[in-house]
Amino acid sequence: MKYPFDETKKYDVIAVGRACIDLNAVEYNRPMEETMTFSKYVGGSPANIAIGTAKLGLKVGFIGKIPDDQHGRFIEQYMREVGVDTTQMVTDQDGHKTGLAFTEIKSPEECSILMYRDQVADLYLEPNEINEAYLKKTKALVISGTALSQSPSREAILKSVQLARKHDVTIVFELDYRPYTWKSAEETAVYYQLVAEQANIVIGTRDEFDMLENRGNGENTATVVALFRHAPELIVIKHGVEGSFAYTKSGETFRGKAYMTKVLKTFGAGDSYASAFLYALIKGESIETALKFGSASASIVVSKHSSSEAMPTVLEIEDLIAAQV
Amino acid sequence: MKYPFDETKKYDVIAVGRACIDLNAVEYNRPMEETMTFSKYVGGSPANIAIGTAKLGLKVGFIGKIPDDQHGRFIEQYMREVGVDTTQMVTDQDGHKTGLAFTEIKSPEECSILMYRDQVADLYLEPNEINEAYLKKTKALVISGTALSQSPSREAILKSVQLARKHDVTIVFELDYRPYTWKSAEETAVYYQLVAEQANIVIGTRDEFDMLENRGNGENTATVVALFRHAPELIVIKHGVEGSFAYTKSGETFRGKAYMTKVLKTFGAGDSYASAFLYALIKGESIETALKFGSASASIVVSKHSSSEAMPTVLEIEDLIAAQV
Amino acid sequence: MKYPFDETKKYDVIAVGRACIDLNAVEYNRPMEETMTFSKYVGGSPANIAIGTAKLGLKVGFIGKIPDDQHGRFIEQYMREVGVDTTQMVTDQDGHKTGLAFTEIKSPEECSILMYRDQVADLYLEPNEINEAYLKKTKALVISGTALSQSPSREAILKSVQLARKHDVTIVFELDYRPYTWKSAEETAVYYQLVAEQANIVIGTRDEFDMLENRGNGENTATVVALFRHAPELIVIKHGVEGSFAYTKSGETFRGKAYMTKVLKTFGAGDSYASAFLYALIKGESIETALKFGSASASIVVSKHSSSEAMPTVLEIEDLIAAQV
Amino acid sequence: MKYPFDETKKYDVIAVGRACIDLNAVEYNRPMEETMTFSKYVGGSPANIAIGTAKLGLKVGFIGKIPDDQHGRFIEQYMREVGVDTTQMVTDQDGHKTGLAFTEIKSPEECSILMYRDQVADLYLEPNEINEAYLKKTKALVISGTALSQSPSREAILKSVQLARKHDVTIVFELDYRPYTWKSAEETAVYYQLVAEQANIVIGTRDEFDMLENRGNGENTATVVALFRHAPELIVIKHGVEGSFAYTKSGETFRGKAYMTKVLKTFGAGDSYASAFLYALIKGESIETALKFGSASASIVVSKHSSSEAMPTVLEIEDLIAAQV
Repeated sequence: MKYPFDETKKYDVIAVGRACIDLNAVEYNRPMEETMTFSKYVGGSPANIAIGTAKLGLKVGFIGKIPDDQHGRFIEQYMREVGVDTTQMVTDQDGHKTGLAFTEIKSPEECSILMYRDQVADLYLEPNEINEAYLKKTKALVISGTALSQSPSREAILKSVQLARKHDVTIVFELDYRPYTWKSAEETAVYYQLVAEQANIVIGTRDEFDMLENRGNGENTATVVALFRHAPELIVIKHGVEGSFAYTKSGETFRGKAYMTKVLKTFGAGDSYASAFLYALIKGESIETALKFGSASASIVVSKHSSSEAMPTVLEIEDLIAAQV
Repeated sequence: MKYPFDETKKYDVIAVGRACIDLNAVEYNRPMEETMTFSKYVGGSPANIAIGTAKLGLKVGFIGKIPDDQHGRFIEQYMREVGVDTTQMVTDQDGHKTGLAFTEIKSPEECSILMYRDQVADLYLEPNEINEAYLKKTKALVISGTALSQSPSREAILKSVQLARKHDVTIVFELDYRPYTWKSAEETAVYYQLVAEQANIVIGTRDEFDMLENRGNGENTATVVALFRHAPELIVIKHGVEGSFAYTKSGETFRGKAYMTKVLKTFGAGDSYASAFLYALIKGESIETALKFGSASASIVVSKHSSSEAMPTVLEIEDLIAAQV
Repeated sequence: MKYPFDETKKYDVIAVGRACIDLNAVEYNRPMEETMTFSKYVGGSPANIAIGTAKLGLKVGFIGKIPDDQHGRFIEQYMREVGVDTTQMVTDQDGHKTGLAFTEIKSPEECSILMYRDQVADLYLEPNEINEAYLKKTKALVISGTALSQSPSREAILKSVQLARKHDVTIVFELDYRPYTWKSAEETAVYYQLVAEQANIVIGTRDEFDMLENRGNGENTATVVALFRHAPELIVIKHGVEGSFAYTKSGETFRGKAYMTKVLKTFGAGDSYASAFLYALIKGESIETALKFGSASASIVVSKHSSSEAMPTVLEIEDLIAAQV
Repeated sequence: MKYPFDETKKYDVIAVGRACIDLNAVEYNRPMEETMTFSKYVGGSPANIAIGTAKLGLKVGFIGKIPDDQHGRFIEQYMREVGVDTTQMVTDQDGHKTGLAFTEIKSPEECSILMYRDQVADLYLEPNEINEAYLKKTKALVISGTALSQSPSREAILKSVQLARKHDVTIVFELDYRPYTWKSAEETAVYYQLVAEQANIVIGTRDEFDMLENRGNGENTATVVALFRHAPELIVIKHGVEGSFAYTKSGETFRGKAYMTKVLKTFGAGDSYASAFLYALIKGESIETALKFGSASASIVVSKHSSSEAMPTVLEIEDLIAAQV
């Protein structure tokens, strides 16, 4: 089964939300207290997806707010150079900084992130900075949940959803739940539900769907039944090493397996999954193939040092799929 | 034509949002600088509608947050005594105060309000303070736009809307636009549109519908066409002394005229309109009759000193309608 | 013993800080929940002292910030009409409101105040709104502790103190401690001590001096010994109905008794005390006489309905002193 | 001429204020956009002075607040290992982060810093976290101006000053002006003046003294005359490559020259100057010698990659002084 997109649109994917800086431990397999050097990469879920899909060959645009400083300029330049259209990246004029993520890699099983997310530029994107003429030109609009966590970014995203629906743009909601900046589980659930009900494709881990439903130990069938009463047509629920499930409104279920790899760290798995899954879907591949692409892409990224820079090519993905039939 | 309600529900109306204090000039027809004495009344659009519908004989409940002080206790007591169920009024524990509205009545044409709305208790209603078991027991849930202007009240209202839809409660959205506390016209439009699209009945002045659409000089036909693509079934647009229009999804239009009166001040007109309009609708009267009830009730309140205390009885309304056939 | 002032100065007293609105219960001897009408007066400790000293015949100026609304204009007008120079009252341009104090008079022993002090204009006085050329023209600068409770008013006061010391203006520090707006007892003590050490005359209740020392049950001798190491020359500690004590740096102690009266409420006692005490001191009376003036003035105000309007004349004070020798 | 200290005290120096993280460009002589790797060091003026004086052999303590994260633990560990007593470093419990300074070294003349200073832990030091019993045990208390820029750190510093004066601890005020976090030049001047008037030794650049006086192009003589009316006994004004001047209350003036070096970057010059100047003074050297120590130490640090790690030993300083007689 395939998922149809409007082929007349100029862009394949426009992602909206945060673009930040990752500072990855150069010396790893140790606590961060003992890490003395950090490498700089572009990070943030929607930026990673924009970079990932651009590297796979899609036509990609990005809407977001970056600071007027060296980090902001680095982000814009890097994304532009990998092929992302950055004409809709707005420069913050109020002194907000880019978010930072210092990664700590004690072992493949023990990774953590030290986050700087106070007053970050990406959460200051304003609704009037969303360009309707631009947004309507894409097949898919990728929204990440974190952009809903604070005003005015929250309203910019809600407006993007209203415009996307008005212009029949496929809304892809990548739940991307991060506890920081949200005030409460109740607040998270209100906005996750609001946007999920209006999205066409919803992607997340089982834990993230539990946040959406504001409960623990949710069950996939109940989740998809509730969401299929509204706009969603395709729902992907990821269960880590047990693989992922895709549900369609017409009643089909597909299961994708996880690919084996030598794990260096767990960061970046979700973004590389979403990139390759979307790539396959937009290229007209079946949902089964898209699930394979997503899983293989995730496997490749977790074996490497960065999240954005490590985004694989189509060939790398196809090779891994072929090698682990 | 009549509007159907679920007759098995325990309450006719539950209003959610702010309940405040009006301080009305005792000496009027002068600038407030020369007013030396003020009378205290309960105020705030949803509180006024709860009081107005209760005085008309409906079964009414109220959900809101009041301060833990003398003003808060006065509000709860007053509403309880006119027959509103106040068991869901939550007492704020964080030192927030009730909003205040000092009214200035220079002349019937020149009225203004001096507002105290910083850190007011009503805007601190939390989503987890919305009781699903209670909310589902009403025919109609009345939401006022001002409650959307700030978090966490905003999320409490969005959650109320989600619960009302889940339990087939008719959502009545009284736009009730007040500039204070909103950050921008863009922000207002995002939330007004979001809730209006999910409401069953939307009531507002032409100016308020312009806020919803974030434009000037909107036109009724375009407004109702856009909203009827979503949940709304009945839309009432008020044009002041030129009367009001009711539009139904099935394509009918009804016009209500304004009743003549000796105007003392303009405050309270909208709330008394909504109260009597809803009363008639819930009592099974036709939309034409409901429009008459709304207009007549508004006429009565603008001729009196307060907004809440002045809410008319059914007999007063019927007398005025009969007198100005 | 007399306290010397610089007789070449144009003003006797300039007070700096808050000018607010008191809303006094018209129906009293009951809980505020049952009070339905409120009378409007100018209030706030430094405004009351400006009004009180002006009514006693001194040349008085006021520095403070008022809102650009009906309450702000009323305050300026009222103070101007009782003779206070209001040319240094700045109008707030950022939408801040005037503080409000709703008084509850259950009985002479049970009085309380319901305060509105969020984002009030008086606490937004900026240091660059202090006019050095104006400030240096007064014999005495009256500072009230509450103005130290928040920035930028705090910095405006600290700058006033620096300018007053530079120009040999006598600094009168009326502790006027109010719990609201202060974040902690530690914070209060830091600024109270800082300003008290630089003031020439310090006036407060025993409880207020305990706040300054951040302890309970302080003892007058220890208090004055510690402060006399710094700038203070005259310290007045009030003990309610037990009377008040004045201590001089040269080692003298004076005791003033309280005057009997029919108490209506307790509000306004401190401000009327300070007004009449300062009046006597500036007029060249002895400290003993000043203590009598202060106590008599306080007795008169607590027997009346307002704090500002009720400020007595010299004749009233002298009559009471004569009647209770 | 020598400056006397109380030789009975346990510590030579206690510094209070910020301890942060410097992230220094590994690849330099280029814009930061092109720097891909950063080295981590402890930074922040008072932390640098604590480290600098400890490395010179003084007995040093530090009072400050660090986050409960990997960066916080690194800071504490590093300072402890170079010999600073860290028992008074408080761990923040409210999620505040450590400040960050990304350094950009385009050329020795073009250095800039990208600062992360929103909600940083060091500015949340509370007055009740200042331990009187500890603070009174030092010869000198080093205060840096930045700690005055925000509450509650501001009040913690003001309280430290009050306690230091009470216990005859020499207060060294290093102006250390940084524009971020201060709201206005007026606000800065109010607090700089307040603390400078109570300090015994004041050290800063000419520009920083201009901030204190809230003017441009100030002149040293006027500056020292004004401050010597209050507590200060020794004032050091630095004029960059033109050298520095030390003024004593007794009327002497000393001039120190700058030492030649191969400059890599300008960061850290002030902190290394203060460290070595204080070291010499406390060791009983003359003011002339202390000026040499300060200048030589600054020269050494600007020729190296970090600020803290690069702090020189006594031998290195003496060698440079000997080499450039």
